[in-house]
Amino acid sequence: MTSDTDTDAVAQVRASFARQGLMDTMGAQMAHCTPGRVVLEMPYSAALSQQHGFVHAGAITALMDSAAGYAAMSLAPAGAEVLTVEFKSNLLAPARARRFRAEGSVLKAGRTVMVAEARCHGLDEGQEKLIATLTATMMVLIDRADLTGISK
Amino acid sequence: MTSDTDTDAVAQVRASFARQGLMDTMGAQMAHCTPGRVVLEMPYSAALSQQHGFVHAGAITALMDSAAGYAAMSLAPAGAEVLTVEFKSNLLAPARARRFRAEGSVLKAGRTVMVAEARCHGLDEGQEKLIATLTATMMVLIDRADLTGISK
Amino acid sequence: MTSDTDTDAVAQVRASFARQGLMDTMGAQMAHCTPGRVVLEMPYSAALSQQHGFVHAGAITALMDSAAGYAAMSLAPAGAEVLTVEFKSNLLAPARARRFRAEGSVLKAGRTVMVAEARCHGLDEGQEKLIATLTATMMVLIDRADLTGISK
Amino acid sequence: MTSDTDTDAVAQVRASFARQGLMDTMGAQMAHCTPGRVVLEMPYSAALSQQHGFVHAGAITALMDSAAGYAAMSLAPAGAEVLTVEFKSNLLAPARARRFRAEGSVLKAGRTVMVAEARCHGLDEGQEKLIATLTATMMVLIDRADLTGISK
Repeated sequence: MTSDTDTDAVAQVRASFARQGLMDTMGAQMAHCTPGRVVLEMPYSAALSQQHGFVHAGAITALMDSAAGYAAMSLAPAGAEVLTVEFKSNLLAPARARRFRAEGSVLKAGRTVMVAEARCHGLDEGQEKLIATLTATMMVLIDRADLTGISK
Repeated sequence: MTSDTDTDAVAQVRASFARQGLMDTMGAQMAHCTPGRVVLEMPYSAALSQQHGFVHAGAITALMDSAAGYAAMSLAPAGAEVLTVEFKSNLLAPARARRFRAEGSVLKAGRTVMVAEARCHGLDEGQEKLIATLTATMMVLIDRADLTGISK
Repeated sequence: MTSDTDTDAVAQVRASFARQGLMDTMGAQMAHCTPGRVVLEMPYSAALSQQHGFVHAGAITALMDSAAGYAAMSLAPAGAEVLTVEFKSNLLAPARARRFRAEGSVLKAGRTVMVAEARCHGLDEGQEKLIATLTATMMVLIDRADLTGISK
Repeated sequence: MTSDTDTDAVAQVRASFARQGLMDTMGAQMAHCTPGRVVLEMPYSAALSQQHGFVHAGAITALMDSAAGYAAMSLAPAGAEVLTVEFKSNLLAPARARRFRAEGSVLKAGRTVMVAEARCHGLDEGQEKLIATLTATMMVLIDRADLTGISK
């Protein structure tokens, strides 16, 4: 999925996203990635449901966390890892739609701490509805062989 | 899984948990449920991973959200539904363990709003390590046929 | 401070703000109030400082909470009270400026639950810098004489 | 207020607390400080009120933030500064009491990031009631003359 026009950071983001088993399990794809902004999309699936058949708040949050985290990583130095320290989600409406789109962006891109946000919309027949928001704090880690070695 | 000694509320919690497709996808099981306290456990799975092979913060949060939410529901009136309004997670250590256990408890059991907490430990060969915490606000909804109808 | 063009809701917001002793202590004023949007401003004061002489995160958060809460109240039914259930602040930069402006807006205006946001900028000689953000959940309470009686 | 038995870290905490103008404005005092645990207390004051005469959520949060932050600082290396990156408060009950006590403790004491908690009780005639909780992320900063110089 890497294109010739990607910056190194964007190529690194796409490669990292491809290693997230949970995103694959959820059917999530990276619809957009430019420095500072990442959009992920996924279809509804009963395999992600809560007790009423909506998508579970945890799955919506996972989608938003990845969108926010990769938006942060797209602004980090080459080779840096970005780990979520904390996040907060507000669930504004039941996650009841055919598809979901989470858009992540960066509020503050510090050297060691980044703050990123995401908003998730439910998508139905051309209509879209804001269903959740997330704010996250990310740590930027450099030269951490202990982390990158794990994924091999 | 309902036993003779369960209260109605506990039986209702177990039945609702069994309808959560995401918990089934994650391999999560309800290890304990008494009024005000719920323990969920799940094994490590690469299908839930983030980019370094640890379990994704979203999956750990989903486990904690369900533990906290069902702890709240176990104290709600019969027939009430409990929906998460918001939660906040702190990821204290990488989710790197063979199994994970989230324990949910209730800080405040109001009539319309409940506040619940969860802590998640990674479990390895008899050792356990606190890896994440969550605080959540839940709404208690009564007589909401629009919600309960969805799961049928 | 009520003007002829205020809606009842806006007049109610201004009257409620005037009763907040903390806002008076902090030197905060309501610079703007229209349905769904409230702007509060305050000057720097050493009486609000943390250990390095910046404004304490708690004071910045109080300003953002009032801005967000009154943005919510401006959309509530006449006579309703709005109470903060929870909030989350991210402190993006030290609160080091001559003045501070918090702008509150409403993400979701439900009947019983509202979700509101605020952003706080430090203002210096025509420059402004984003220093903090807040997301809050508010409860809308109607006919609660136990609350309104307290302020008399 | 420094005693002979204080560790250097505890002495540093007490000295830093004494420089917080907001704590003085609020009438807050440090009732207890040992490594990893700090207790702050303050009396009710109308100067800290919200619109119903309770103490404003922002003032209660400021008290909890200082308790949590100093609990973190009490575990940091000598000379380190500790700054709040983010916090989340749940307001469980109206802050209606004669006195308030916030107790801060540390969930995770990392080298660069600490996670701390606080709980606030309202105190009335021998009774105490849990009214709020806070979880905070702190950054540990070492050799930051730009920060420490400000307070002189």
